[in-house]
Amino acid sequence: MRATVLGAGSWGTALAIQLARVGHETVLWDRNPGRAERINREHRNPRYLTSVELPEALRADPNLGRAVAHADLLVTAVPSHALAAVAAQAKEHLAPQAAVCCATKGIEDGTLRTMHEVLEHSLVPSERITMLYGPSFALEVANNLPTAVVVAGADTHRAAEAFHGQNFRCYSTDDVVGVCVGGSLKNVMAIATGVADGVGLGANARAGLITRGLAEITRLAVAKGANPLTMMGLAGLGDLVLTCTGNLSRNRRVGLALGEGKTLQQILDELGEVAEGVSTASSAWKLAAQLGVEMPITHQIHALLYEDKPVEQALADLMGRTRRSERDG
Amino acid sequence: MRATVLGAGSWGTALAIQLARVGHETVLWDRNPGRAERINREHRNPRYLTSVELPEALRADPNLGRAVAHADLLVTAVPSHALAAVAAQAKEHLAPQAAVCCATKGIEDGTLRTMHEVLEHSLVPSERITMLYGPSFALEVANNLPTAVVVAGADTHRAAEAFHGQNFRCYSTDDVVGVCVGGSLKNVMAIATGVADGVGLGANARAGLITRGLAEITRLAVAKGANPLTMMGLAGLGDLVLTCTGNLSRNRRVGLALGEGKTLQQILDELGEVAEGVSTASSAWKLAAQLGVEMPITHQIHALLYEDKPVEQALADLMGRTRRSERDG
Repeated sequence: MRATVLGAGSWGTALAIQLARVGHETVLWDRNPGRAERINREHRNPRYLTSVELPEALRADPNLGRAVAHADLLVTAVPSHALAAVAAQAKEHLAPQAAVCCATKGIEDGTLRTMHEVLEHSLVPSERITMLYGPSFALEVANNLPTAVVVAGADTHRAAEAFHGQNFRCYSTDDVVGVCVGGSLKNVMAIATGVADGVGLGANARAGLITRGLAEITRLAVAKGANPLTMMGLAGLGDLVLTCTGNLSRNRRVGLALGEGKTLQQILDELGEVAEGVSTASSAWKLAAQLGVEMPITHQIHALLYEDKPVEQALADLMGRTRRSERDG
Repeated sequence: MRATVLGAGSWGTALAIQLARVGHETVLWDRNPGRAERINREHRNPRYLTSVELPEALRADPNLGRAVAHADLLVTAVPSHALAAVAAQAKEHLAPQAAVCCATKGIEDGTLRTMHEVLEHSLVPSERITMLYGPSFALEVANNLPTAVVVAGADTHRAAEAFHGQNFRCYSTDDVVGVCVGGSLKNVMAIATGVADGVGLGANARAGLITRGLAEITRLAVAKGANPLTMMGLAGLGDLVLTCTGNLSRNRRVGLALGEGKTLQQILDELGEVAEGVSTASSAWKLAAQLGVEMPITHQIHALLYEDKPVEQALADLMGRTRRSERDG
């Protein structure tokens, strides 16, 4: 099979490594020609996962049309804010039988669409799209450490077969909405738990926040038509736990730095890569309002990021909410 | 209110501190007279949470009958293997109106009873028992860091009111079985994720194990009559995440040491305190067989602890299982 990954950030690079590792002729689209050239010459991404040697079967191409035309399987790993534009450009080059696999996480700002809805609108019909989400730090996938992900769609077979390897297992579900919401919203909760850890609230508080975080993600997902049980799976609980407890998470690092008193602008300047949770906090907050779903953690993170609310006040408002039964908001 | 906590280990000491902190005249039963005397003289537990100064309103008593007779609220925090015997001795001393709150976690070996079932059999009728479970490292509670727990029972009001403080929040549920199973089985999963981390499998693998761990705990709980949604709450997911990711967890440390190649006997000798997961792995494994529930992680941890199965083989058998859909075992 011939595979193409769009987007040469950490996650796109890791997925391309996995596809090449299991034997597919793999193209990694890097829109920067200089970097694409260096990848092909040095067999190493000069900017992301720089410690990892790339497999022989992987080559980079800065030409979007040519990269897309190569693909039997097209994987998207560009940031969420770029997906619609990239998909629109890719459309005319995509082979009629090619499958599309989406690894971009987020809720599009403005339209409030999931990444599945973006691709369905701009690229191919729903039945040709598979979402690939789940607990997966790019560096660990690149280093072939054991990873389990979930593939969601009407026909997940092709994507699952393409990625499947001894240390990379794909489990399937038909709950596209649940996977999209779970995989995207966890980044907001990673900021929240990062803030709590940055302030030094402790492990008990973090576990409580993760639990309440999954509850509010589930409310939003169900309001959009998801099966609540999906939230107990890899794209719900699994990805949430990974992102909220692992220091490789960019979103968690944003929260930690906020908790330590840095400003958002400082943090984003130092990070140098997109932290999807920052924009998802905005789009999820709007989506919750639109659907009438109570999301107190998302609400406080939105206030912290976009309304200059002081960290102490946001945390106090969050921890101090009165709630009597576990099933309440 | 007059409160008594049975068991002066880390958790019993922390709960007694919390009760004294919010103003109750609190007795901590330490069966060791020398240690009880030192607690009263030095206002510090000489063996557990040694860094924490105990409140004035807390005193220790080595006399079980006198300690129990003191209580309007009796809290049990002895190890699971000792609960039945301690409860039987306490029975004749307990005031007729006293409420009982159980903070002991585990599944009794041999009888395979939950701690609620043990107390119901040996001490008071079900309606007088409240379980107090949830994500709570003792040291953090002792230091008054924010903590949220769940109280489960027919009438949780008295226990919830007794413990409730600004940084210690009690949420109620009526799903006693779900709370008992969730709060006990997480210790087995903590050993499993500890082993994986000890071997160096990485954060992706740990998140996958936690996800599958919650799924198998849920299967067992549901087979015993629990509501699956309880598993998404503080005594399910919350406590599981805390125990599987926080290095203060004794059970996790057992797993880490196993993963690093130590023998169980070495580890238990060094630990010096009960790791409930070791006995729960045995009782849960039997309970799963009795109820016909598939529990692959518990099965491998049982084999590792009790059948001398090598760590590498147990992990390989665990990670290598073929599974296609998220909802499968």
